[in-house]
Amino acid sequence: MTAAAPFFAPAPPLQVAHWFNTPEPLTLDSLRGRVVVLHAFQMLCPGCVEHGIPQARRVHEAFAQDQLVVIGLHTVFEHHAVQGTPEALQAFIHEYRLRFPIGLDQPDTPRSIPRTMQSLSLSGTPSLVVLDPQGRVRLHHFGHLDDLRLGALLGRLLAEPTPAAPATVPATGCDDGGCPLPDQPRP
Amino acid sequence: MTAAAPFFAPAPPLQVAHWFNTPEPLTLDSLRGRVVVLHAFQMLCPGCVEHGIPQARRVHEAFAQDQLVVIGLHTVFEHHAVQGTPEALQAFIHEYRLRFPIGLDQPDTPRSIPRTMQSLSLSGTPSLVVLDPQGRVRLHHFGHLDDLRLGALLGRLLAEPTPAAPATVPATGCDDGGCPLPDQPRP
Amino acid sequence: MTAAAPFFAPAPPLQVAHWFNTPEPLTLDSLRGRVVVLHAFQMLCPGCVEHGIPQARRVHEAFAQDQLVVIGLHTVFEHHAVQGTPEALQAFIHEYRLRFPIGLDQPDTPRSIPRTMQSLSLSGTPSLVVLDPQGRVRLHHFGHLDDLRLGALLGRLLAEPTPAAPATVPATGCDDGGCPLPDQPRP
Amino acid sequence: MTAAAPFFAPAPPLQVAHWFNTPEPLTLDSLRGRVVVLHAFQMLCPGCVEHGIPQARRVHEAFAQDQLVVIGLHTVFEHHAVQGTPEALQAFIHEYRLRFPIGLDQPDTPRSIPRTMQSLSLSGTPSLVVLDPQGRVRLHHFGHLDDLRLGALLGRLLAEPTPAAPATVPATGCDDGGCPLPDQPRP
Repeated sequence: MTAAAPFFAPAPPLQVAHWFNTPEPLTLDSLRGRVVVLHAFQMLCPGCVEHGIPQARRVHEAFAQDQLVVIGLHTVFEHHAVQGTPEALQAFIHEYRLRFPIGLDQPDTPRSIPRTMQSLSLSGTPSLVVLDPQGRVRLHHFGHLDDLRLGALLGRLLAEPTPAAPATVPATGCDDGGCPLPDQPRP
Repeated sequence: MTAAAPFFAPAPPLQVAHWFNTPEPLTLDSLRGRVVVLHAFQMLCPGCVEHGIPQARRVHEAFAQDQLVVIGLHTVFEHHAVQGTPEALQAFIHEYRLRFPIGLDQPDTPRSIPRTMQSLSLSGTPSLVVLDPQGRVRLHHFGHLDDLRLGALLGRLLAEPTPAAPATVPATGCDDGGCPLPDQPRP
Repeated sequence: MTAAAPFFAPAPPLQVAHWFNTPEPLTLDSLRGRVVVLHAFQMLCPGCVEHGIPQARRVHEAFAQDQLVVIGLHTVFEHHAVQGTPEALQAFIHEYRLRFPIGLDQPDTPRSIPRTMQSLSLSGTPSLVVLDPQGRVRLHHFGHLDDLRLGALLGRLLAEPTPAAPATVPATGCDDGGCPLPDQPRP
Repeated sequence: MTAAAPFFAPAPPLQVAHWFNTPEPLTLDSLRGRVVVLHAFQMLCPGCVEHGIPQARRVHEAFAQDQLVVIGLHTVFEHHAVQGTPEALQAFIHEYRLRFPIGLDQPDTPRSIPRTMQSLSLSGTPSLVVLDPQGRVRLHHFGHLDDLRLGALLGRLLAEPTPAAPATVPATGCDDGGCPLPDQPRP
């Protein structure tokens, strides 16, 4: 009998109004199998520009993209008129020469906090959310985290044995394990 | 007989659409008698945010304001829609907690380079223009200048003997030198 | 049938003339089960003082010591008279307030390269050698390595499953595998 | 009638046991007419290595040597056996590639504070002492001083009008001012 594994919550889906630096919209589901580093930022947030964005850039450059993906998330919760438009984000990405995929978090009018920021329960910017290859939240950090500790976490996640991928099965139908209802996990 | 003094051009007037951090618009004429450090920047210019703005802040803190005045000049020549509005500049000033006077350089539609930037013949951002107490341009620098060299220049300008202030005269009327037309310099 | 595991060479023993910051001499054997980070430096090496020593300090502070141990190794290969004595190293450790164990690499008169530096085949200082919990060399790096990449390696090594410790056997004698000659590995 | 000029004390002579990076010993008298920046340091002082020495190097590179001279002064007041010898200082200068003149402050056995450090009343290392072209102490600072403020002081001193050099007179003898005793200042 083995000890119970710790429970890590699956990350909610990204809700993005506009994507940059990616030929098509990204979904966390499609990134399953890779570590995902989400950097939530605002272009007018000094700590993001000074620490968060340069760190995201370093992570993007240090790891192979088939193992680890960096995603910037522009979570505008203040100064919406100034920094909240796709044009503003586009100009920022251009001037700072950012190369990794960046999404504009879906606004939620009239609430001021955008939707992914809400569903991830972020406390502010910069924030760092790291998902393991199974899409589970393994780090949820507001503020700056030093490179050594972030690197150690990423190295650990990359080294964890990957559970066998579940057999792809039709959404409905029976197999040796039984006959699930549609949209229910298989036993 | 003394050697001819070098000629330093007087700075052209500031043309500013909107002022921040000052109760009333600034003019170079009103700052005569003080060294003036003009920092031209754009909020989406990485070199400005990383080097120019922090240096302007340090200069503002290091010198007595009755001797030396720092003025930020937001010279928007690209991404006008994003960074060119007073609201954008206001948000930037707020988030970066800037305390020195900052002017939004007067746009010159449909030309893309704003007016003070034109009249100062700036090459880009960040740029540094330093005026001596007589309002003459003593430094005109595109890019970053290290603190030691900037400090040495400012110290030198502050130490120069100030010429006797011209007698204040009524805008019109006669004196021993003659009777000038209104708005003409006195002989 | 599984793929052959990559071969990683075991680290040679440390040869140390004088230890600091440890109640008793350290041996790599006694650290088996933990990741070991060796920082080879010289007190008069600018790159060591600027980059290597601060990084060693950060690693020492970021990880639990029952999982990872930082060891400084003063590998004096030049200016022996000045920096090669225990007194010199003691003064350096005192002034820089270093807290992790540091060994003075055993001099090898009349050769100028000390013994552990020789046996580890280091190219100069600073150098970084990282051992996994089985005492095998997993990183051998001359110059500076950034915190993100070093952190990722350390995280990976800490996450690797530890093989069951081999049964302790007498240095000579027979077992089920056969009868080795003294000093020969068992089959 | 003019206001009395402030009094600035003349710097005491340098007492140096060994000079580096200069073809012959330096004296403050021979540097009259130039600004002199004295950087007092110890090679095992972390703040000196991190801040003071790099600043001295920057000052040395930023100013013309016929106007301003940087002198390093190795004021060893602790760990004498390790860092107090000319060989130790030579090795340090070599490894850090320092190019400006550096003197080893004359030891004062059995007192632990060397002689120039005593006569300058320095509080520790790093310390910065700045002399004006007349050899008078204009800055006496223990700890780090930022480049902007140091630059401003140096610029100011370089801009001060130089008093007319006193006429060179024989050590004894009369002139229009009178007949001084030997070694007395002329009226």
